[in-house]
Amino acid sequence: MKCFVTGGAGFIGSNLVDRLLAAGHDVTVYDNLSTGCRRFLADAEKNGARFVEGDCLDQAMIKDAMAGHDSVFHLAANADVRFGTHYPRRDLEQNTIATFQVLEAARLNGVERIMFSSTGAIYGETKTIPTPEDAPFPVQTSLYGASKLAGEGMIQAYAEGFGIKAYIFRFVSILGERYGHGHVFDFYRKLKADPTRMDVLGNGKQKKSYLYVQDCIDAILLAIDKAEENVNIFNLGTDKYSDVNNSIRLISERLGIQPELVYEGSDRGWIGDNPFIYLDCARIRSLGWEPKVSINDGILKTLEYLIENPWLLESRT
Amino acid sequence: MKCFVTGGAGFIGSNLVDRLLAAGHDVTVYDNLSTGCRRFLADAEKNGARFVEGDCLDQAMIKDAMAGHDSVFHLAANADVRFGTHYPRRDLEQNTIATFQVLEAARLNGVERIMFSSTGAIYGETKTIPTPEDAPFPVQTSLYGASKLAGEGMIQAYAEGFGIKAYIFRFVSILGERYGHGHVFDFYRKLKADPTRMDVLGNGKQKKSYLYVQDCIDAILLAIDKAEENVNIFNLGTDKYSDVNNSIRLISERLGIQPELVYEGSDRGWIGDNPFIYLDCARIRSLGWEPKVSINDGILKTLEYLIENPWLLESRT
Repeated sequence: MKCFVTGGAGFIGSNLVDRLLAAGHDVTVYDNLSTGCRRFLADAEKNGARFVEGDCLDQAMIKDAMAGHDSVFHLAANADVRFGTHYPRRDLEQNTIATFQVLEAARLNGVERIMFSSTGAIYGETKTIPTPEDAPFPVQTSLYGASKLAGEGMIQAYAEGFGIKAYIFRFVSILGERYGHGHVFDFYRKLKADPTRMDVLGNGKQKKSYLYVQDCIDAILLAIDKAEENVNIFNLGTDKYSDVNNSIRLISERLGIQPELVYEGSDRGWIGDNPFIYLDCARIRSLGWEPKVSINDGILKTLEYLIENPWLLESRT
Repeated sequence: MKCFVTGGAGFIGSNLVDRLLAAGHDVTVYDNLSTGCRRFLADAEKNGARFVEGDCLDQAMIKDAMAGHDSVFHLAANADVRFGTHYPRRDLEQNTIATFQVLEAARLNGVERIMFSSTGAIYGETKTIPTPEDAPFPVQTSLYGASKLAGEGMIQAYAEGFGIKAYIFRFVSILGERYGHGHVFDFYRKLKADPTRMDVLGNGKQKKSYLYVQDCIDAILLAIDKAEENVNIFNLGTDKYSDVNNSIRLISERLGIQPELVYEGSDRGWIGDNPFIYLDCARIRSLGWEPKVSINDGILKTLEYLIENPWLLESRT
């Protein structure tokens, strides 16, 4: 494939780029470096990846940069669900409108397939747990989820209207090397700053289902290889779950500290936070996929990477 | 209520405005007159409605115009599903982004409730027929449906994040006085131009469920009065359906003509057209609503209005 990876300098994107190159594909990374890091692409660029610094909202630029590619991996996004109510416009622009611009560029360039990183947050506070892809039509509870839903809808309509084959992946939280935001990152940063005490949003019992980034990429590559529909939608997660307290315990043990934990107290961390995202992944499993790395090992691999790469923590403060 | 009605000079909007005034509410119409007609507001303005000519995309203007209102009825939209693939940007701008601007204006003005005109097209080609509000998570097949889905998602997230109470109505096709686009309009126009022959998109057997505009407004007003959730979603349709051939037959009989019908032949009229939209409306019926006007009577009332108001046909050519 001739792959065009938006957000290819980000956490999941740069890992995907390495895997695409290793599989012999041609890769162009398109990233505005707002949260992505050129440093994540050091190996990729040695291995032949092209890098274009550009924004998905720049229609002329993305259209030109995408020329000659047959496969688009659209990972560029505002991926932080927590600040939706502080900056309502951000999710609209960086997720919904940016996805539209990517689709227009794909249409005008005759792209054959598009892969999209969606989210389990799209199911809102569904009562169907574990949640399959065809769960009852959900009600959105976050602007992040709403903006990803909007992106999915446009991609599906483009698949129907213009014959672009679509692969939509609804992720749980992804962990692993180059991870640069979210629970494990925040906990490590807080505990590094003050190993004696940590304030925890919510009550620590919020359940989360995490997936290790290489398992996530295994699933994406398998689905693109095997799934035959015009629109292919897959949940990606594990059939295990963890809670916030477990993550804090693992990190504290690895760091050899015993912080006092102070809970904020409600059953969720922020407005629109879902107390339990747990996806039914039977569909992707039916293609022969299963995760190889446990949640605890994923947390520990993430932590090792952060310990070994202090520049990443420093770059986000 | 102090009502702010976007698209209030349009077909459904202007009928709603008349009803709101008759019920003693205070009404401001906000409309850019792109498809709405000031003429539809002749009675309303005599009865005290204020009219502001403005576009929902003009954030400063809509925010100022909305000040002092507690209830927003957001009906402004690109309502024509058929041209999505010709003008992909139109649905994004006029439906998705415009809805965001309305929500921001509502948030900044402390609006209490928002009513949104969504669509049965949002269910795509669902296999669940009749289709309830909590049907399996659908796949979008039109840019119009996708843009309305995006609007719903944002409204739901604003309801959760900012405490604005939301009323979302998924309409079938609406018929009645001031109707200015769609099947009945197109058929009448074609048959008026050439009573001897008509080219029919599709095979004439596309089933449609139509609802008469006053029945639609009865349901909206009842739901706002009775529904208590933070996010209230209702299908609005009849439990009857009709097909395109039936509409043509009714119109031909009323006009006293016998056109030759020439079918284009496929099972749908345009890309993304759904061969059968038929909604399960048990939820709104449980509040005590039922439609009073049959589909055939709705078609005939629509036709009478078009015959009596030739200016409307002329204004759309």
